[in-house]
Amino acid sequence: MKKLINSPDTVVTQALQGVAAAHPQLKVDVENKVITRAGGPRTGKVGLVSGGGSGHEPLHGGFVGYGMLDAACPGEVFTSPVPDQMLIATRAVNGGAGVLHVVKNYTGDVLNFQMAAELAEDEGIEVVPIITNDDVAVEDSLYTAGRRGTGATVFVEKIAGALAEEGADLGTVAAGAREVNERSRSFGVALSSCVVPAAGKPTFELGDSEIELGIGIHGEPGRTRTTHSTASDLAAVALDAIGADLSLDTDLLVMVNGMGGTPLIELYLLFNEVRQQVEARGGRVARNLVGNYITSLEMQGFSVTVGQLTDTLTRLWDAPVDTPALRWGR
Amino acid sequence: MKKLINSPDTVVTQALQGVAAAHPQLKVDVENKVITRAGGPRTGKVGLVSGGGSGHEPLHGGFVGYGMLDAACPGEVFTSPVPDQMLIATRAVNGGAGVLHVVKNYTGDVLNFQMAAELAEDEGIEVVPIITNDDVAVEDSLYTAGRRGTGATVFVEKIAGALAEEGADLGTVAAGAREVNERSRSFGVALSSCVVPAAGKPTFELGDSEIELGIGIHGEPGRTRTTHSTASDLAAVALDAIGADLSLDTDLLVMVNGMGGTPLIELYLLFNEVRQQVEARGGRVARNLVGNYITSLEMQGFSVTVGQLTDTLTRLWDAPVDTPALRWGR
Repeated sequence: MKKLINSPDTVVTQALQGVAAAHPQLKVDVENKVITRAGGPRTGKVGLVSGGGSGHEPLHGGFVGYGMLDAACPGEVFTSPVPDQMLIATRAVNGGAGVLHVVKNYTGDVLNFQMAAELAEDEGIEVVPIITNDDVAVEDSLYTAGRRGTGATVFVEKIAGALAEEGADLGTVAAGAREVNERSRSFGVALSSCVVPAAGKPTFELGDSEIELGIGIHGEPGRTRTTHSTASDLAAVALDAIGADLSLDTDLLVMVNGMGGTPLIELYLLFNEVRQQVEARGGRVARNLVGNYITSLEMQGFSVTVGQLTDTLTRLWDAPVDTPALRWGR
Repeated sequence: MKKLINSPDTVVTQALQGVAAAHPQLKVDVENKVITRAGGPRTGKVGLVSGGGSGHEPLHGGFVGYGMLDAACPGEVFTSPVPDQMLIATRAVNGGAGVLHVVKNYTGDVLNFQMAAELAEDEGIEVVPIITNDDVAVEDSLYTAGRRGTGATVFVEKIAGALAEEGADLGTVAAGAREVNERSRSFGVALSSCVVPAAGKPTFELGDSEIELGIGIHGEPGRTRTTHSTASDLAAVALDAIGADLSLDTDLLVMVNGMGGTPLIELYLLFNEVRQQVEARGGRVARNLVGNYITSLEMQGFSVTVGQLTDTLTRLWDAPVDTPALRWGR
């Protein structure tokens, strides 16, 4: 294992110290592992909190800022944050208009966020959870009942964040978040494993020309292993899986996401394949993201997330955002 | 070799098609491999052109846009672009105020840009080259006479771009670029090799716990191979090498750059070490970049680039920029 760390025990804490130093527009409570926007909550604005295991950076801390999240609580690597942490984040972003919890569908995250919501409600803070479950690869994966939540989480955080920023109430923000999740699907492919620092060895083994279709963002099993193929073939596999569950013949928001260890030149090449194949299926890539947005440490591979746009969703996607990892229009 | 490509022959062309589709604010001449800002040159503005081998994305194409480059010409992977390509780029950005060529110090790039400059001068376009040579690791490396040009290129492109955007003349833009290069130094470390698509195998081999200090961005040899160590130790190695050539007890612009295959969580952790050690050496990290900015395909590892700031350089660094890979203030 070759990692740029000091010790597996201190990875998350020391990385958070780095986040704090790199981004003065964020306030980082290193001890409690909570990242918030500097300046505190805005009275009357719905607060947005997300969180989950570390190792998926820039998700979620990189999406804290104007027009997106108000707080993120990172757990240890690939481990859910704890309810207390979520409660601290919820309190910190409460401007009196309630708080949305954006939760990827992993059993630990869902249970812990539920407990945090109950604790917050006891303190008089209204909380609504939105659970993303966009990954079409498998039902009931290693850490999940139902479908896993992956790339759509980025879309949900952006669009719900835009709604909250323009003053929508909690019900409206939650409805928007739910709509985005319902209109989005993802599929991922691994070319190599990731290495969790505490484990010190690859989570799984792949042969020299073997890949895993439908991989999870923690390296949990996908649909099948097969022989590596061309970018064109892999784009087709992803779009077939997504297209079986979501119609593609409309204006789409498409993210071609790197798993952490894939060169950007390859992601652009893959995006070109996805775009052409979407067009051949009667759709149009109206908006896009190409890069590392929801990663699995150093895993080589990619995920494709497709969201059906409406005029309103396009407007909210285009709305100004100012976070470390996503920034435009402001 | 597991890569997200269709064929080694078409990597650059198909990736450029992806860049074109992803970024409507760019104009991509796929056939000639030239990326320019949409809308053409602005009359009276100095044009900025950079280029070099592909495989270092987002450098350079990701830095084309308001406040930075006017054009980038990518060569094949790790291969210099050709003079004709550079000439096309130079013509395309000529607004009558001359053109700056930003060239990383690799022999092929330098010679080809020199030829392109001569051809452009024959057409009446004034060209000034600025050659970056910030990498303190080695003199006279595999493809270079003198020091290699690496991370400082990002600083030069940003600051010279800001000068050009505010209307400075060619001499002033070139002097600013030269000043940034002279005040900047870099040092890189490889934890793993990269794989050039056409070669299909790792450029070099490293043992399970072996790393290479002073690696080049094409995998060309550094100073020495040694046993992998902590992030703290590696930050010290990089800052020792840089500090031997540049005083660190001032306000600094620091980039902790991933080589392409390093998780972002590790880059933040390393940045925290660098920041602390800079402070211990009497300096201050006044501005920073943490992420993948000048990569070596899927190589695992990092480079640290340090630039001494002045009030003027800080102002120019903070000036608005709007490119795919760097965007703020606008």
